[in-house]
Amino acid sequence: MDTITAGQYLLVYNAFSFTFAAMAAATLFFWFGRSQVGPAYKTALTITGLVTAIAAYHYFRIFESWSSAYALTDGVITASGVGFNDAYRYVDWLLTVPLLLIELVLVMRLSQSKTVSLSVRLGSAAALMIILGYPGEVADDNTTRAIWGTLSSIPFLYIVWELFKGLGDAIERQPESARGLIKQARLLTFASWGFYPIVYMIPYTSLSGGAVETGVQIGYTIADIVAKVGVGILVYMIAVRKSEAEYGDAAKPVTVAVAQ
Amino acid sequence: MDTITAGQYLLVYNAFSFTFAAMAAATLFFWFGRSQVGPAYKTALTITGLVTAIAAYHYFRIFESWSSAYALTDGVITASGVGFNDAYRYVDWLLTVPLLLIELVLVMRLSQSKTVSLSVRLGSAAALMIILGYPGEVADDNTTRAIWGTLSSIPFLYIVWELFKGLGDAIERQPESARGLIKQARLLTFASWGFYPIVYMIPYTSLSGGAVETGVQIGYTIADIVAKVGVGILVYMIAVRKSEAEYGDAAKPVTVAVAQ
Repeated sequence: MDTITAGQYLLVYNAFSFTFAAMAAATLFFWFGRSQVGPAYKTALTITGLVTAIAAYHYFRIFESWSSAYALTDGVITASGVGFNDAYRYVDWLLTVPLLLIELVLVMRLSQSKTVSLSVRLGSAAALMIILGYPGEVADDNTTRAIWGTLSSIPFLYIVWELFKGLGDAIERQPESARGLIKQARLLTFASWGFYPIVYMIPYTSLSGGAVETGVQIGYTIADIVAKVGVGILVYMIAVRKSEAEYGDAAKPVTVAVAQ
Repeated sequence: MDTITAGQYLLVYNAFSFTFAAMAAATLFFWFGRSQVGPAYKTALTITGLVTAIAAYHYFRIFESWSSAYALTDGVITASGVGFNDAYRYVDWLLTVPLLLIELVLVMRLSQSKTVSLSVRLGSAAALMIILGYPGEVADDNTTRAIWGTLSSIPFLYIVWELFKGLGDAIERQPESARGLIKQARLLTFASWGFYPIVYMIPYTSLSGGAVETGVQIGYTIADIVAKVGVGILVYMIAVRKSEAEYGDAAKPVTVAVAQ
């Protein structure tokens, strides 16, 4: 266990509690939103909420694991001997990262066959990316870390290629009111995912001991919030705008729709 | 208690937490999906979600039981003396395996009398299969294990016969858009169930001690995810496609339906 200071411990502790609350709140927001979009977009919001729900569960577990890994008494911090279980993150990503790509595909409302084939291809690549990253994350030496990190970036590059090349035409055919938002969601997905490898490489910096551990935990936490809640809000806005364009504005007085 | 390594303990620990999250997420997905299918298919999705909900409950219990069976302090693992309760799996299967067959029967939308008689016959055979397997699972010697395992395979073969012979004609009468998916669901049920006996036979291999325990736990966990979440997603897709074929596409703009 790395030696960390009481201040570092508390920073990470509070960040985990904050993130649990943010993920749980986002989940409820997305699921309440299901009743405000057209039938074609309900599944996209179901999945968007599932991503943050799964993350909320894991941040609850991560928080508990962090609390029990250290004891802070009279301002003095000691390791309890119970290890912090970092694997929760990878277990979370294995479920949520494929779902994040599927929510983007679903909100585009492509043909049924294209939706299934894209979801399977992007979902599998995302799972492979996570699986290849894990042996590096738990490795003690930085060379092993680099090898698995590099292998993991191959499916990542394939995903980026699919998002920017494969989905390019489909985005141009989206309703004009949603097109800009879809491009933003794609860019935010790319940017937030690009942040994970940067955090992954923190052990290569001149930081050491508790600063590395704190940097990695805070870094991954920020990236998770942006990738799951941030992208989720964009998906929600896309679903609302496309519903308005395709089903009419649900916010208009109902009487207008039934009047002769 | 078998001696296991810290790595084996953590692998199983994380697999149980992952499976709890996956089962709980799948449950919500199936139940949200109820609002997106026609009235005839709502019960199939209710049952599909019940299967994963029951499994989520049991994986939560299994996770707690596993955590309390061992203590991991400063990287050293010791048995706590509290035994790991493997019976949770059989209790789970006794409830979920009959329900898994019933969800397959329900999504086919056969006549009421055929639905009831098939559900009773397949459900009873499935329960018998689980009950006969249990004495073998807890037996200390491999001969007793083999005898009960063989007895358990008799109702299994009956189920396979019903699925492939008895349901064959009914599948040919399904809407074309769903027929392929129903055959896939039947095949995935057969393949995933065929995986359980393989895991059951791990004690006969040259593996020993912690490797047997780890292999059995990880094996059953993978089989449960495929049989419950994997087959469940296929049942969901079948329900959506058959609803479209029989009730019209719910994703079409609502305004079209009410406009003059």
